[in-house]
Amino acid sequence: MAGNTFGNVLKITTFGESHGAALGCVIDGVPAGISISTREIQLELDRRRPGQSKVTTARKEKDQVEILSGVFEGKTLGTPIALLIRNQDQKSADYAKLKNIFRPGHADFTWQQKFGLRDFRGGGRSSGRETVARVAAAAIARKILDSKKIKIIAFAQEIAGIVSQKFDAKVIEKNLVRAADSAAAQKMEAAILAAQKIGDSVGGVIEIRIQNVPAGLGNPVFDKISARLGAALLSIGGVKGIEFGVGFAAAKLRGSEMNDEFISLKKKKTNRGGGIAGGITDGSEIVMRIAVRPTASISSPQKTIDSKGKAQKIEVAGRHDPCLVPRIIPVAEAMVALTLADYLLASRLDRI
Amino acid sequence: MAGNTFGNVLKITTFGESHGAALGCVIDGVPAGISISTREIQLELDRRRPGQSKVTTARKEKDQVEILSGVFEGKTLGTPIALLIRNQDQKSADYAKLKNIFRPGHADFTWQQKFGLRDFRGGGRSSGRETVARVAAAAIARKILDSKKIKIIAFAQEIAGIVSQKFDAKVIEKNLVRAADSAAAQKMEAAILAAQKIGDSVGGVIEIRIQNVPAGLGNPVFDKISARLGAALLSIGGVKGIEFGVGFAAAKLRGSEMNDEFISLKKKKTNRGGGIAGGITDGSEIVMRIAVRPTASISSPQKTIDSKGKAQKIEVAGRHDPCLVPRIIPVAEAMVALTLADYLLASRLDRI
Amino acid sequence: MAGNTFGNVLKITTFGESHGAALGCVIDGVPAGISISTREIQLELDRRRPGQSKVTTARKEKDQVEILSGVFEGKTLGTPIALLIRNQDQKSADYAKLKNIFRPGHADFTWQQKFGLRDFRGGGRSSGRETVARVAAAAIARKILDSKKIKIIAFAQEIAGIVSQKFDAKVIEKNLVRAADSAAAQKMEAAILAAQKIGDSVGGVIEIRIQNVPAGLGNPVFDKISARLGAALLSIGGVKGIEFGVGFAAAKLRGSEMNDEFISLKKKKTNRGGGIAGGITDGSEIVMRIAVRPTASISSPQKTIDSKGKAQKIEVAGRHDPCLVPRIIPVAEAMVALTLADYLLASRLDRI
Amino acid sequence: MAGNTFGNVLKITTFGESHGAALGCVIDGVPAGISISTREIQLELDRRRPGQSKVTTARKEKDQVEILSGVFEGKTLGTPIALLIRNQDQKSADYAKLKNIFRPGHADFTWQQKFGLRDFRGGGRSSGRETVARVAAAAIARKILDSKKIKIIAFAQEIAGIVSQKFDAKVIEKNLVRAADSAAAQKMEAAILAAQKIGDSVGGVIEIRIQNVPAGLGNPVFDKISARLGAALLSIGGVKGIEFGVGFAAAKLRGSEMNDEFISLKKKKTNRGGGIAGGITDGSEIVMRIAVRPTASISSPQKTIDSKGKAQKIEVAGRHDPCLVPRIIPVAEAMVALTLADYLLASRLDRI
Repeated sequence: MAGNTFGNVLKITTFGESHGAALGCVIDGVPAGISISTREIQLELDRRRPGQSKVTTARKEKDQVEILSGVFEGKTLGTPIALLIRNQDQKSADYAKLKNIFRPGHADFTWQQKFGLRDFRGGGRSSGRETVARVAAAAIARKILDSKKIKIIAFAQEIAGIVSQKFDAKVIEKNLVRAADSAAAQKMEAAILAAQKIGDSVGGVIEIRIQNVPAGLGNPVFDKISARLGAALLSIGGVKGIEFGVGFAAAKLRGSEMNDEFISLKKKKTNRGGGIAGGITDGSEIVMRIAVRPTASISSPQKTIDSKGKAQKIEVAGRHDPCLVPRIIPVAEAMVALTLADYLLASRLDRI
Repeated sequence: MAGNTFGNVLKITTFGESHGAALGCVIDGVPAGISISTREIQLELDRRRPGQSKVTTARKEKDQVEILSGVFEGKTLGTPIALLIRNQDQKSADYAKLKNIFRPGHADFTWQQKFGLRDFRGGGRSSGRETVARVAAAAIARKILDSKKIKIIAFAQEIAGIVSQKFDAKVIEKNLVRAADSAAAQKMEAAILAAQKIGDSVGGVIEIRIQNVPAGLGNPVFDKISARLGAALLSIGGVKGIEFGVGFAAAKLRGSEMNDEFISLKKKKTNRGGGIAGGITDGSEIVMRIAVRPTASISSPQKTIDSKGKAQKIEVAGRHDPCLVPRIIPVAEAMVALTLADYLLASRLDRI
Repeated sequence: MAGNTFGNVLKITTFGESHGAALGCVIDGVPAGISISTREIQLELDRRRPGQSKVTTARKEKDQVEILSGVFEGKTLGTPIALLIRNQDQKSADYAKLKNIFRPGHADFTWQQKFGLRDFRGGGRSSGRETVARVAAAAIARKILDSKKIKIIAFAQEIAGIVSQKFDAKVIEKNLVRAADSAAAQKMEAAILAAQKIGDSVGGVIEIRIQNVPAGLGNPVFDKISARLGAALLSIGGVKGIEFGVGFAAAKLRGSEMNDEFISLKKKKTNRGGGIAGGITDGSEIVMRIAVRPTASISSPQKTIDSKGKAQKIEVAGRHDPCLVPRIIPVAEAMVALTLADYLLASRLDRI
Repeated sequence: MAGNTFGNVLKITTFGESHGAALGCVIDGVPAGISISTREIQLELDRRRPGQSKVTTARKEKDQVEILSGVFEGKTLGTPIALLIRNQDQKSADYAKLKNIFRPGHADFTWQQKFGLRDFRGGGRSSGRETVARVAAAAIARKILDSKKIKIIAFAQEIAGIVSQKFDAKVIEKNLVRAADSAAAQKMEAAILAAQKIGDSVGGVIEIRIQNVPAGLGNPVFDKISARLGAALLSIGGVKGIEFGVGFAAAKLRGSEMNDEFISLKKKKTNRGGGIAGGITDGSEIVMRIAVRPTASISSPQKTIDSKGKAQKIEVAGRHDPCLVPRIIPVAEAMVALTLADYLLASRLDRI
């Protein structure tokens, strides 16, 4: 209820502040008998790690994970798996002057309103750094998906107004922005650096495709797979919208244009619904797009107020991603993996 | 976990199939001492009722609600409130021929895949008729919001490609499509009827604004108010996307254009974030838009398959809404009311 | 959280006040494809029904159940099953004079303290009448247990100080007190009637045995099967204690006397642990006993206070069970059935 | 659902195996603004620590706690509080020979049946060592109770058949067995050592009293405070029974003897109900007793089987508590503290 737990069957609870001692999570509900190693988790963390390229923040964090429990002789025990990532490169001093100032576009003001106090160092728990625990947990969820060959592909569909023109999954991890179009990637990278140079930031759109999803995953009514995937992705800081299949374009279509005709039990003629009907997967590829706002932290001067309501000027120094898209991609994949693994396990309960 | 319960503190569990004996819900977690009458619930149901105008389905349902429990001498007892709505105008025979056929755009196929059997009469529980229970429950949630003067306004922003050009809250309930722009409403109505005439349907966009929301509502991490509002609205059949504030347009903005400057503790210069920062309300109006697909049920002939995978032709007779927007509006309001009332109660737990 | 829901996977939410319009429940998480009929549910309700013999209350309730949803053509749909039982023989007028008086041993005072108001008619929701919904729901849980041949036997082990001397399962439903010892049953019956005659009531002990339970049911740590069976049975009004296996007698044993030696993978030499070790079933019979207090409602005069704290004298007229044991037995079975069916379904999630 | 989380509003999730890297917990739902220090938590852990006296195990664990998150500048942030306790004195080699043998009275067999594999070192997660995390978490719960002056007193009421004859709270922490009767304590201590000498163990009864509990705590129906306190205490390994107020003795009383007469709104003449009526506190002292079995680990030889079902002889070497009572006392207090703090916070939701 306090918002730090995700999942029905496979439950992850995360903890940690950006500049506290550590971040981590407890994953409960993992079936016994899954092979998992520290290395497999670390690989995922490395994809999300800060400082991985010139278009990401310069904060240096090794983000080394330790498995504290729940794994014995290389296999899951069926007991809670606790993962720990110590914070290292914390320059908390940078933040002392932000103690009483609300950064525009950030959660400083809203968290203060809710809790009456806050860890003002780097946004505390409202920092994107919190997602490190999600990515770690998702490495375990992925093992469950692997057993069904379910594959999640996320990529930069658009950055700074530059839209990808083709889809080549092989190039995604070969360019700094994680686009599926090498030519567009070059332009996106340049646009990010140009914005950074003038102390500004840019936004974009991430597309996520999930392949080999069996038909029949999801729940009726409130826990439709679209609803929960929506919540999962909207729970990532900076995400301002989500759409499935043709998404907002559906508003302009007619029913005869929107409906996906069945060709066989395995195939539909089109996939405008994005692989989901009535909140349950239909066996087609799930297709989603999320809107990512430009990074709130910018170094050019902004007007704001302090905790007394007095006008202040602020330049957010620190070390920030000039565009969130490249580093949100592994986080978005993580949330999708956690969601799908949860539904996959839960589907064992569907029939007597 | 089975997906029929919504909320953390204020929990609603709904039940019922489109052509079963009844629909209804149990609302648990309602504080004791709230005044509520059958009439107040009925008023909300009447706004959602089928057959209310020429642009909605001709199905005749009085949708009369009975309070079975939890209310005594006009006040809530703190015990579960059960609400019952009997089904009446069920023409189940219409559906017998659909027993083994999957309607395109519907959940027939996916539910069959999940459960191995289904109530094929009018979509069973996957029918939009299920939302009657949500609207009934929300009448109680609204009483909690009323005490804080929180106001929810939803309207047709776009139907069949016709976009509203102005916002006049007073006209919403005075036109058949529930637009906030009377001139646009006329054109939308005409477009719906035109589509219906040729056995087709149209989609649209609903905008939802929430006024007088106190700052500080929401939860960290997974249960951000944007995440849960997203899930709440995406749990309505036919909704294919959601965006907050400037939404997908944020992808094209720079940080300096997107950030909302604070002017005072009560006021920001702009509201591009849509009233939410870091998953918690900032005291500004919450602004959301949802994409509504054109109705899947259309009377013009479509190709599909039966449960053996054999090709079939289908004309979905029945009585259907040619556009879901007008009747989804009260449902969207209901989901927002349930979500906000839940957070409002939960906020009592924020501080010692 | 408001306390009206039970179960993790198989979730039952009950509603209703003793003298309100109706009682009932929604059971969510029932797998699709289970055969169930109104008759099967009614049979269980008839075992719990008031007025079934001279040792039970004279209140006349047919307790007729209606299935409102979730069942189609005789099979569960996988959607919520709502069950409705209308109240009929409500003599609410009897209770008007109790509006401002707190009956000793009842929940009048404590509910008033919690909620600030209450339905004073027959205890409202704190009445034992509430358990009718549990028994109805359990009829469905039993169908799940039946598929594994799991059998629940509950009986009066002791009433009014008279202790059963033998165990003959066949006689339980053949005597009015539901003892497994016919001779003891005669004495128990006489003791109940004697107490009733002088306006008093008696207590007892119920023993519950569960047969054919597979080894490996239960959860680590907080959700041990003993912990949840404990909660399940302590949630029945009037239950003041529970013990497993040798129970409180374990306090006087040595480890060498208490430990159950394994003879084979299927058999232990003794069953002092009562079929549970470390919170998980070991394949032996589960054995529990619960202490049932004498009925709080007695017709002999008692001293008490009213809502202003002023001294009052009270004679609880109404129609009451002079001993709760016979009618709690089916309720205890119901709670055990709900608990076990829940664990049985959940055990599908134990291993990859 | 996997059983490692406790609480509705104040939720604790524990993790860790007896001989793994660490044990710990995440506590979510703690309101912001509570002062808490590592030292306060450590004090509670020291009361539970092994090796504290000659009647407890010789295992040497400092059980030093580290706060990983959720606390900033000495105050709770409203975010999850993660607590870490590293394992140190692990003599895992002792357990290698137990890899394929099931210890009588232990969870080796049942966990193997459930999960198909297990951490056989010291019982893994089924070890009593797991409770260290509960005690740590409860230190925070206690801060919430302190604000209402709620006080929990637990003591050895009976050990090895020796029953306390008086109640003197001041002596509890001054004798090794934690009895409230110094003379009885001497005999209990002697009895424990005598049993230990012959390679055996003894059981006992713990009484728990909770003072200054406000009236009105608890929930209707399934989540009665007696039900949840029952579950909380039955979730401690080795607890075989629980009773409230007069408990099992209620079975032999008449209604006229059992009912507690009200004298004023603040006072009842007697407290046979143990401070709870209808699952909700009545403002009197809550009184409970739990039955603790003799320690399963004994060094005298026992017959058992191995994982193939072959007969084996076993002498459980290791270092074990000859009586669980003294060290379960702080654990029982912890579970009570967690339960009460949860209800206390939840009670903010009772009324509008």
